[in-house]
Amino acid sequence: MEPAKLTEISSLGEFGLIDRLTKNLGPSLNNSTLKGVGDDCAVMRYKDTDVLVSTDLLLEGVHFDLTYVPLKHLGYKAIVVNLSDIYAMNGRPRQVTVSLGISARFAVEHIETLYEGMRLACQIYGVDLVGGDTTASKQGLVISVTAIGDVEPGKEVYRSGAKDTDLICVSGDLGAAYMGLQLLEREKNVGAGQKNFTPDFAGKEYLVERQLKPEARKDIIEALATKGVLPTSMIDVSDGLSSELLHICHDSHVGCRVYEDRIPIDYQTAVMAEEIGMNLVTAALNGGEDYELLFTVPLHDHEAVSKMEGVKIIGHITKEDLGYRLITRDGNEMPLKAQGWNHLQ
Amino acid sequence: MEPAKLTEISSLGEFGLIDRLTKNLGPSLNNSTLKGVGDDCAVMRYKDTDVLVSTDLLLEGVHFDLTYVPLKHLGYKAIVVNLSDIYAMNGRPRQVTVSLGISARFAVEHIETLYEGMRLACQIYGVDLVGGDTTASKQGLVISVTAIGDVEPGKEVYRSGAKDTDLICVSGDLGAAYMGLQLLEREKNVGAGQKNFTPDFAGKEYLVERQLKPEARKDIIEALATKGVLPTSMIDVSDGLSSELLHICHDSHVGCRVYEDRIPIDYQTAVMAEEIGMNLVTAALNGGEDYELLFTVPLHDHEAVSKMEGVKIIGHITKEDLGYRLITRDGNEMPLKAQGWNHLQ
Repeated sequence: MEPAKLTEISSLGEFGLIDRLTKNLGPSLNNSTLKGVGDDCAVMRYKDTDVLVSTDLLLEGVHFDLTYVPLKHLGYKAIVVNLSDIYAMNGRPRQVTVSLGISARFAVEHIETLYEGMRLACQIYGVDLVGGDTTASKQGLVISVTAIGDVEPGKEVYRSGAKDTDLICVSGDLGAAYMGLQLLEREKNVGAGQKNFTPDFAGKEYLVERQLKPEARKDIIEALATKGVLPTSMIDVSDGLSSELLHICHDSHVGCRVYEDRIPIDYQTAVMAEEIGMNLVTAALNGGEDYELLFTVPLHDHEAVSKMEGVKIIGHITKEDLGYRLITRDGNEMPLKAQGWNHLQ
Repeated sequence: MEPAKLTEISSLGEFGLIDRLTKNLGPSLNNSTLKGVGDDCAVMRYKDTDVLVSTDLLLEGVHFDLTYVPLKHLGYKAIVVNLSDIYAMNGRPRQVTVSLGISARFAVEHIETLYEGMRLACQIYGVDLVGGDTTASKQGLVISVTAIGDVEPGKEVYRSGAKDTDLICVSGDLGAAYMGLQLLEREKNVGAGQKNFTPDFAGKEYLVERQLKPEARKDIIEALATKGVLPTSMIDVSDGLSSELLHICHDSHVGCRVYEDRIPIDYQTAVMAEEIGMNLVTAALNGGEDYELLFTVPLHDHEAVSKMEGVKIIGHITKEDLGYRLITRDGNEMPLKAQGWNHLQ
């Protein structure tokens, strides 16, 4: 943190800080946003739609490390991961609220930088920041984001609708965000104690970007709508493909078969896995933080999803008693297990 | 914390803990609750109503001290303070989401106790707990609650609608929660280091209750509706009467005159202020955490609000250039200032 020209938060007070952070929010992007920041509540007007709400809590030292996470990226990611949950219901995000717990080592400018990233994500995804809470923290930075969205009644896609013979599809590629985290941690350790250390990300920029600045798959939701494909179940990949697929199977009372050679993995992910001696498929199955969409569609949508850019069919749903299986490249069957992230273990 | 029979959270994992906490939630209390805990989002169906969202972040060591705040009360209060914001818009709360950051010293049973208080508040106020996030914390307990409610379009009451000559009304009494906090802090200091210390709250039970188990004024919102009174502006008293009244004046571009002898103060509050040598009016004006409703009504509603149980007319709105005035018992005028709580100063 640069020493010059920083403004102490105490010099503004809570209301002054909120004014400063929210004065650049601009006009509402959604007709449903009736009243944003500045009253006891935000007010939204939805007609003939269902309302979706999702919330995430991000804590310094658990979910992010400010040694290598720039505040602007952190703000961007904090918004995006919540929007991802709205898309995963086949919804459209419209509003977010942001609560911040700010410890004494942060200056106004730091929080403005964090907010800049949040505003940028809001603009890109067409979402209004409509409220929140700002308080001191004795415990590092605390970020709580709640996203509100809407979906046409009957078009919401739950985790529980997958049926026997459905195709299992996933967007983008998997494991890169996890490899990005390994890379950032490695460079942090290499650079520890060195002044003016420059981390080496050459040839691995994609991994860093996937970790620091993930995107939510708005484009996939729009493409599905355009093609008239309504998934039978959907979830976003935050904890890793295995964990999410098991959520769908559990909630839908079905089994699954996933083909190892179908799992989409980027070249940089493979290189990094090789470098650190980690099994590539393990990384792709359990890495987490990909924020891709995992969904199932009926067999008759095979042609439509086959032609969708950025979507891959990785397997199919089976009867529940057939279990949860990974078919390896050499044709063996392995049980699919959820390792995923588990911050509580 | 009792040593026996506690379950380590790590033995359940995140999903196990969520299952255990949410299995007793029971059926939905609101028709608008389509889907609660267990998917990417909660789903709500509102028709012909406006949707309200409010969020609060509560941090251990800043907003609560577990030395004297029982976890069940904390859970209850965390919900109630959010519902209070929905009522302050003339709305009805319908759903809440709860995010928890849990540090290693808490066992499953502790979090269940916290949740019990939350569930109790939800039951009493007719609200559904529909989702949230649960994570480890390295920094003490973190609680983030988001409340969702609805209001008939056109019936929302903002801070900005107060008009010259409007009457200023407040529910309940003020300053007791602040005095409760002083009392709890005093007894904590007296008992520090003593085993089996029993704090002395004799004759001051009301103060302790106001601090530890505040209520939101659902009854006042219902009474206003019954009497056909639509306030011109409203806010809940969380930061202290002065601070809230100045919010209304600022947002409505008006001034105000408040009469010291009209400010409702409980006898126990007065006794405690005397004991600790604090000016009673200062406590009532700036104490905070009362969660009463402060609102303005047109003059023609004078009779209706005069007859309302638990509501007191404490002054009136003036033109903006007349400023913000407290008329003391001896007829002097004092400028009204916001001290309030300011966690960031």
